[in-house]
Amino acid sequence: MRLSSVLPVLIWGRAYRRADLVADLLAAVVVTILLVPQGLAYATLAGLPPEVGLYASIAPVLAYALLGTSRALAVGPVAVLSLMSLTAAGMVAPPGTPAFAEASALLALLSGAMLVLMGVLRLGFLANLLSHPVVSAFISASALLIALSQVRHLLGLPPADGTSAAETIAALARTLPETDAETLAVGGFALLFLAWSRRGAQPLLVRLGLPAAAAAAAARAAPALAVAAGMAAVVLLGLEADGVRTLGAIPAGLPPLALPALEAGRIVPLLLPAFLIALIGFVESVSVAQTLAARRRETVRPDQELVALGAANLAAGLTGGFSVTGGFARSVVNFDAGARTPAAGAFTALGILSAVLFLGPALAPLPHAVLAATIIVSVLSLIDLGVPRTLLAYSRPDFAAYVATALATIAVGVEAGVVAGVLFTIGVTLWRTSRPHVAIVGQVPGTQHYRNVRRHAVITRPEILSVRIDESLSHLNVRTIEAFLLAEIAARPEVRHLVLMCSGINAIDASGLEMLEALTHRLAEAGVLLHLSEVKGPVMDRLRKTRFLAALSGRVFLSQHEAVRTLAEDAPAGHPPPPGRPPHGEARAEADSRPASAGQGGAGPA
Amino acid sequence: MRLSSVLPVLIWGRAYRRADLVADLLAAVVVTILLVPQGLAYATLAGLPPEVGLYASIAPVLAYALLGTSRALAVGPVAVLSLMSLTAAGMVAPPGTPAFAEASALLALLSGAMLVLMGVLRLGFLANLLSHPVVSAFISASALLIALSQVRHLLGLPPADGTSAAETIAALARTLPETDAETLAVGGFALLFLAWSRRGAQPLLVRLGLPAAAAAAAARAAPALAVAAGMAAVVLLGLEADGVRTLGAIPAGLPPLALPALEAGRIVPLLLPAFLIALIGFVESVSVAQTLAARRRETVRPDQELVALGAANLAAGLTGGFSVTGGFARSVVNFDAGARTPAAGAFTALGILSAVLFLGPALAPLPHAVLAATIIVSVLSLIDLGVPRTLLAYSRPDFAAYVATALATIAVGVEAGVVAGVLFTIGVTLWRTSRPHVAIVGQVPGTQHYRNVRRHAVITRPEILSVRIDESLSHLNVRTIEAFLLAEIAARPEVRHLVLMCSGINAIDASGLEMLEALTHRLAEAGVLLHLSEVKGPVMDRLRKTRFLAALSGRVFLSQHEAVRTLAEDAPAGHPPPPGRPPHGEARAEADSRPASAGQGGAGPA
Repeated sequence: MRLSSVLPVLIWGRAYRRADLVADLLAAVVVTILLVPQGLAYATLAGLPPEVGLYASIAPVLAYALLGTSRALAVGPVAVLSLMSLTAAGMVAPPGTPAFAEASALLALLSGAMLVLMGVLRLGFLANLLSHPVVSAFISASALLIALSQVRHLLGLPPADGTSAAETIAALARTLPETDAETLAVGGFALLFLAWSRRGAQPLLVRLGLPAAAAAAAARAAPALAVAAGMAAVVLLGLEADGVRTLGAIPAGLPPLALPALEAGRIVPLLLPAFLIALIGFVESVSVAQTLAARRRETVRPDQELVALGAANLAAGLTGGFSVTGGFARSVVNFDAGARTPAAGAFTALGILSAVLFLGPALAPLPHAVLAATIIVSVLSLIDLGVPRTLLAYSRPDFAAYVATALATIAVGVEAGVVAGVLFTIGVTLWRTSRPHVAIVGQVPGTQHYRNVRRHAVITRPEILSVRIDESLSHLNVRTIEAFLLAEIAARPEVRHLVLMCSGINAIDASGLEMLEALTHRLAEAGVLLHLSEVKGPVMDRLRKTRFLAALSGRVFLSQHEAVRTLAEDAPAGHPPPPGRPPHGEARAEADSRPASAGQGGAGPA
Repeated sequence: MRLSSVLPVLIWGRAYRRADLVADLLAAVVVTILLVPQGLAYATLAGLPPEVGLYASIAPVLAYALLGTSRALAVGPVAVLSLMSLTAAGMVAPPGTPAFAEASALLALLSGAMLVLMGVLRLGFLANLLSHPVVSAFISASALLIALSQVRHLLGLPPADGTSAAETIAALARTLPETDAETLAVGGFALLFLAWSRRGAQPLLVRLGLPAAAAAAAARAAPALAVAAGMAAVVLLGLEADGVRTLGAIPAGLPPLALPALEAGRIVPLLLPAFLIALIGFVESVSVAQTLAARRRETVRPDQELVALGAANLAAGLTGGFSVTGGFARSVVNFDAGARTPAAGAFTALGILSAVLFLGPALAPLPHAVLAATIIVSVLSLIDLGVPRTLLAYSRPDFAAYVATALATIAVGVEAGVVAGVLFTIGVTLWRTSRPHVAIVGQVPGTQHYRNVRRHAVITRPEILSVRIDESLSHLNVRTIEAFLLAEIAARPEVRHLVLMCSGINAIDASGLEMLEALTHRLAEAGVLLHLSEVKGPVMDRLRKTRFLAALSGRVFLSQHEAVRTLAEDAPAGHPPPPGRPPHGEARAEADSRPASAGQGGAGPA
């Protein structure tokens, strides 16, 4: 049982049936047809020879099939990681050199090792540092950078230095006059065809008589069709002689098995990028895996996913590949094509391997412009401009994090973007926690409920101040809360009891405990007793381990209502509320509803 | 009104009476007697000429009197900041040089500017980064470092390089044979006398017939007495000739008025230390001010305190002083001596000024060993070994933060200590928030309360899964929560309704909203409706701004009980709970109490 949780293949492999085999084989064929052009395209995006994209779709896929907990996730190169890999490896060696290819593999190896380590040490929570707005901004901004970087391939322009948006645009503007008409024609046609195919292909095929499911599957083959058409055009029209750049000869043969040189001088600059690639890759992949698993009421174990993705990247690094993760588009294709188990992934790997072994030389006339069109159409669909609009309406801090991440990514680069986003989010989290919602509460007439005096017409008693704190007590907010409470007490000389309603307090850290101890002491010196009400079970369990409950000047009540009822009964008989006290700031509702408090509780003996 | 909130002197100054004047003057005399030896001692601790300690007790005190919101806080040099100042200025120039003194003043100027800026921009929450355990560990470890650094003065040994504990101990061990007997005699006597005076002086004076209050005030003069006795011993016994080191001539005259040279080369290395000094100084000072203010039911405004402390440090930097803050011991003395308004501070400043003008030459024979004894006795009282014990019992993460801070401070230095503590605390905060307490809940029989199935024998229904989340939904925990919910749903094929009980959810950030949207979508595909219950007012207000409530597959219920009652009534009649389902993991109590659910709600039409 222990082993099967580490090797999920032991679970699904034991129950494998002939029907599964047929379904998985069919899905593998569909995915292979999609993956070949994608692999070629993302490898060139990452500054690597095209065959590397195919290598990265073999061993990593097998590794994930053995270890992964998602039944439909398809692992391989993806656009955003390819851009991150290009940027990182570019710091170590210039793209196009063998040293660059080795750095790309080393990067995958490092990311893989980090992911496995995070999985084994249960450090998956580190991925939580990436909030949805940060990831969304990063993906959209990266997609823009990627699309920009491909424009030169569409136009047949020479490569540019640097990967920032400003550098790319400057280079494009400078070399625009050198645009190659034939390349533009090929690329432009592919671009239009692919853009149309995303929405128009399936309905057309259905109208031509294909069943809906088959039409959807066939529509997914549009990139393969574009590739084939592009090659045909090059060969038939002799476009290569006209300056249309093509892939050229792709070596046929097994992926190389080699450990990249582990030199500190190369490893150190790649550590941060490798970590960021690991985080982004994991976040994206788990999100896809959970989406698909939920559809079949299956489940994904994030910690095991870390190990599986890590193994996939280790495999990529050892077989001349580069950074991989679970891709959204291909996983959906795999799922829709009926993949039932990770065996579909294994069959896909065999399919790609056949492509490498037998298809390589045939791909020589494939124009770069067609691959660029594939990438552009694919990444532009990643840009979601609805997100910032929603964020602006829902949460300013999240919107600010979005903007900061997007700007840093576009202006400086992918790593700066992720780092800026994470730091900004941490700052916002700390800032938010440090300004908790604190409400002075009173009794809703005729009920036992206590609500905010600013929102409701409630009954309060002058000698009892009831405050609800809607946040766990931690070092981030106890100074603010204490200052608020002391100021409220100082402003109400008639208060004899402060009741903290703890229903929103999920935890109290040592600083919170220290504050409560200081507070009970300070209030006692001012003649005010401190009480707690509605303390949660886990919080109370921990308070019982301390001396605080003994030092507490007042009592702990099960409910706020019990607290107020008891304290009101204990009040000295000759101490009626002053009738005409002017309202204090936000507690105006309190004064408005004061008269009603007369009938609330009798004045018992002191 | 606006102006008086910026210049609190306008409030208390207007109501100033003759009785206040008498009380404030009396307190000022007592505090002056305490401050003169303290100022001399902390200046030498900070590697500065002794008179600088007096300079730092004049203009800063006046600045705080004008701007501060605490009526009893006494500002001036304190032990821990003196050590931090020594360490920081030591990076720029060697102690004892004019450049070092200028760096110390520059450091105060920078801290002051940062504090004013934080006050104006309402950035006081940055001080929240320092948790109680971190501050406590830092103070205790610094006190140990300070006491260690003074041992050589007690023994008459030459100065050591470096400020880390290891360096100091190594230097002591190396030079121990050079111990000067006369110095040790003077210092040892002062040390024993001061240590005894902390507890023994007041009772003795009371037994000798003094009233308790007067005895307490007189006992505070022990350091001044030790200083006087030390000087007398040096003069009468001619100890200077025997090698007892003394302060030597102190220049009489006004503090110099000078702006330290603002060169980038000097400023940049001092920025981080200046920020840390600002934070530590502010945290300590506000804590003292709040303690004293609460005793008289007064209040302290932290944002204005930032400005006042900042002005005090600017004043220190411009008058040849060094970093200052509100000190605990002197503020308590000021309070106990009856200070009623900040005017007491202004009178103290005049007292110290007189000391500088007229007492300077008379202090020449004061032995360093006596000042060292003053410092040692004073800082050892800052070490509180009860704190780590309490932390270990109450909160492991806080204990770990304590140990990390203390070790970093002692092994590396004061800056490393603060930085390590802050980073560790941030890490722990993020880690904690990422592992929220989540409970599957059921109905407590005979009530409308819903509690944890693991803690209580409760009633549940197989088609309804109720989950209470005891944490705000944020990017730090939504992945964990979603994985938990999806796994629970996957493990319970009979579940048709998931009810999230939101009583512990104080806020939902954009990532939380995104998770809820994805969750309702994913659950709908698996045939499960998502409902919410007990959503707090502020949370609901923000959800109403989004499309989520429209997309939600289920409903929002006012209470958990209403949710379960309504959903149970809606259940199809022909769908009774399977009687013999095996219990699932932690939901065992659920299965135990299943039979009771039969009488809970009628089966209405589907």
